[in-house]
Amino acid sequence: MGHVHLSEIAAEVGCEWEGDEDPLISGAAGLTEAGAGDITFVADKKLLPHLAQTRAAAVVLHLDVDSPVPALRSEDPYAVFAQILARFAVRREHIFPPGIHPSALVDPSANIGKEVSLGPYAVIGAGARIGDGSALGPHVVVGPDVVIGLNCTLYPLSIVREGCILGDNVVLHAGAVIGTDGFGYLPDGDRLKKIPQIGIVELADNVEVGANSCIDRATTGRTLVGEGTKIDNLVQIGHNVTIGRNSAISAQSGVSGSCQLGDGVACGGQVGISDHVKIGDGVKIGAKTGIFQDAEPGQSLFGIPAFEVRESFKMVATLRRLPEMMERLRKLEKLLGDRKRDDGESSC
Amino acid sequence: MGHVHLSEIAAEVGCEWEGDEDPLISGAAGLTEAGAGDITFVADKKLLPHLAQTRAAAVVLHLDVDSPVPALRSEDPYAVFAQILARFAVRREHIFPPGIHPSALVDPSANIGKEVSLGPYAVIGAGARIGDGSALGPHVVVGPDVVIGLNCTLYPLSIVREGCILGDNVVLHAGAVIGTDGFGYLPDGDRLKKIPQIGIVELADNVEVGANSCIDRATTGRTLVGEGTKIDNLVQIGHNVTIGRNSAISAQSGVSGSCQLGDGVACGGQVGISDHVKIGDGVKIGAKTGIFQDAEPGQSLFGIPAFEVRESFKMVATLRRLPEMMERLRKLEKLLGDRKRDDGESSC
Amino acid sequence: MGHVHLSEIAAEVGCEWEGDEDPLISGAAGLTEAGAGDITFVADKKLLPHLAQTRAAAVVLHLDVDSPVPALRSEDPYAVFAQILARFAVRREHIFPPGIHPSALVDPSANIGKEVSLGPYAVIGAGARIGDGSALGPHVVVGPDVVIGLNCTLYPLSIVREGCILGDNVVLHAGAVIGTDGFGYLPDGDRLKKIPQIGIVELADNVEVGANSCIDRATTGRTLVGEGTKIDNLVQIGHNVTIGRNSAISAQSGVSGSCQLGDGVACGGQVGISDHVKIGDGVKIGAKTGIFQDAEPGQSLFGIPAFEVRESFKMVATLRRLPEMMERLRKLEKLLGDRKRDDGESSC
Repeated sequence: MGHVHLSEIAAEVGCEWEGDEDPLISGAAGLTEAGAGDITFVADKKLLPHLAQTRAAAVVLHLDVDSPVPALRSEDPYAVFAQILARFAVRREHIFPPGIHPSALVDPSANIGKEVSLGPYAVIGAGARIGDGSALGPHVVVGPDVVIGLNCTLYPLSIVREGCILGDNVVLHAGAVIGTDGFGYLPDGDRLKKIPQIGIVELADNVEVGANSCIDRATTGRTLVGEGTKIDNLVQIGHNVTIGRNSAISAQSGVSGSCQLGDGVACGGQVGISDHVKIGDGVKIGAKTGIFQDAEPGQSLFGIPAFEVRESFKMVATLRRLPEMMERLRKLEKLLGDRKRDDGESSC
Repeated sequence: MGHVHLSEIAAEVGCEWEGDEDPLISGAAGLTEAGAGDITFVADKKLLPHLAQTRAAAVVLHLDVDSPVPALRSEDPYAVFAQILARFAVRREHIFPPGIHPSALVDPSANIGKEVSLGPYAVIGAGARIGDGSALGPHVVVGPDVVIGLNCTLYPLSIVREGCILGDNVVLHAGAVIGTDGFGYLPDGDRLKKIPQIGIVELADNVEVGANSCIDRATTGRTLVGEGTKIDNLVQIGHNVTIGRNSAISAQSGVSGSCQLGDGVACGGQVGISDHVKIGDGVKIGAKTGIFQDAEPGQSLFGIPAFEVRESFKMVATLRRLPEMMERLRKLEKLLGDRKRDDGESSC
Repeated sequence: MGHVHLSEIAAEVGCEWEGDEDPLISGAAGLTEAGAGDITFVADKKLLPHLAQTRAAAVVLHLDVDSPVPALRSEDPYAVFAQILARFAVRREHIFPPGIHPSALVDPSANIGKEVSLGPYAVIGAGARIGDGSALGPHVVVGPDVVIGLNCTLYPLSIVREGCILGDNVVLHAGAVIGTDGFGYLPDGDRLKKIPQIGIVELADNVEVGANSCIDRATTGRTLVGEGTKIDNLVQIGHNVTIGRNSAISAQSGVSGSCQLGDGVACGGQVGISDHVKIGDGVKIGAKTGIFQDAEPGQSLFGIPAFEVRESFKMVATLRRLPEMMERLRKLEKLLGDRKRDDGESSC
């Protein structure tokens, strides 16, 4: 926030800058929306024609392109721009005012670290531990015996149920539910008898969980999300799932019970993975894909059911020609039928 | 609520009524479930046989049909019935009692309009503004610097994060999350580095957002939902999406980042739209469709990936005959193979 | 919780036990994760090789298998293990401390039964009734005139809107929304005019609703979920839907308005059912399936659109050979084209 000279930003992000003046920068915005005082960027050279019209005060740009406004130079303008964004973000303390709000209810047996922010009406259960520097917004519910690491951020209306464990720097967005019961029942005549879900969820360091996403506690043991893995909004992670490190699960995807996902897995939106499936490291899964079988490391999958993305695209391309194929098949049959008749006649 | 004569309802909705008596109406219900005192309707003439058995006190009916009970006459019975429903709905003041509940926490720098209802434990952040006549239920969280227009309705446990803007008459249902972070990361070696999301969400006048739906704030600039657009439950709207006016997005659909949807777009349930896709005005998208490419105004699309609905249906119809096609293909091959042999033999 | 001898567990679950000693059991866990003091199980005989290495103190096992550790014997080890889990679950009173928390707000006209637990900041509306033995966690919102039966469990941040009815032993998980408005609009020129949703939701006895799931109130009348039906997380149930008894709807599935599902229906994850569809008793629906037509009792369905699972699998198998079929078709055409020419030439 506030105003800062372009030269200072350049120093912060370690880039060269150039221009007739050293403008004051007060915000950051996309190329066409940027106004006076904004810094913007051009990463895609197809967008360079728009640069002439920009109202931005400065731009982050590739090394080899002329600029009508003062410019920061980088081989990866978007990465530098992303770095600059942090400085113009709303300060964490503005969203999570420091200290324990008087309306926050902390069980006497809970252990609250240093420089923790607890928002209005936050509820911390018996035996829970909140690490130093963590911030919990209004109405966050932390169940009994939960452990929350250092510098975590729990947005309003998120909940961590009893016994679950969060590492350091974990972020839960609004409405996220950690540790709800797994969906486990046994048939009992016509009825469904609940299987108690006595395990927990563990989120390793640097995990981020999107708004209104749900992660089920394990039947026994733990559901585990590995270090650095990012989960988008409205995602469902079933009981006893294990996800590796630095994977990304896009919105509205679902991972069924007991699946094992490796490191660096990338899931598009609305993906579904059947229970007990193993997904190797680095697997890429296209949006809306349905996975019913194990996937080898490095595969790229698409479709319902999923096939290698190349095969799947070829299938789709041919699929479109199905009615035409049917027609051609009919013609061949007719032709052969006719010739059969012809042959028959000629043999008379 | 309360009782009212059929004649009064007729006057309110501007229809003729007829019958031997002017019954007191105390509720509204569907044809088969309606009891004594209810008004019902028949819009679909196939259901007329049920009318003879109705226990309803009155019915909304097409002009040309005989009625065994007193009737309101209309060319569009369902539209008239829908109008009548409003009078039997629970009054807004019953759900959102007037005034500021003593447990609502309003930051001293927030600005609360006239005749605003703030429910128990509502939390209004620094610098926020709530327009006249708006009603916020229990546990609603309004972040710092949020602007909420006139006569908005925020159901319990909904949240608007810092800096977002709501127009007039906006409705947020329970658990809706406005302005959560967009899902933006850059690769940083094996790791995923968060791109700060410093933009906002703006919901124009008369927008309605369903329960537990999520609308991501923009990376920079704003995610925009246009006037009169209605969003169902559990919908995901990504960062920097723009949706036009009077569109309808059904439950569990997802619109990925930077998509642009036009006016009057109609999305069935569980639709997914890939990032940066443009959907023209009036496009209709069937349930479960996956859209990976731009759609021209007026198109009707279905399937994963999406095709024009006619083509898609033809494909599905042929798809079903695939195993049969394979069989017919085999026969042809055999026939030709046999005849090849026959030809060969006869040439001996 | 606590420690218990294997012989006591055996008596509780009605099984024989055997072993050189009668170990103290302090927990329950899966075969490979079990540690000292745990009881585990082997239901799948393929896993028996792992049994030799177990650190578990005891195991639930089929009758005919040798055990290296003391064992409970059963023909259905998993069912017995599930029964044992209950004893090691966190006690309900630990999560929902008895009594009415002083910060719970109960409208003077509400009626609270005996031995009810109301958590911090729970809000109970005018005229609501909470049955004996029910437990409502922090921030639960119960709207005006709601009826909640005996021994219900409402996890934190769940909400039941005005007028809805819950039977006995109903469980709502965190963030579940019962009775939000159905998605009903009528075109009014270009605009969408809201159809007031004046009905309710009724959940029969023993219904369980997962975290962040939404069940829409009826337009008129009621949306009904039958006795013993279990609904997973992030599920959407539309207005005026009727679901029978002992059905199971897995995560992220959506049932559109006015559908009728029978008893014992089993829905995989991410299933979508189009509006006004009837699904007979005992229908099984595979994950990601899209249903646009009625289903007869006992059908097993898969695909978008759905076909009988056998037919669907055959289609998928052939689908994969589509590019190959196209190739074979081309060859036949070429062959016939060539012979046509040949015939033509020979007829000269």
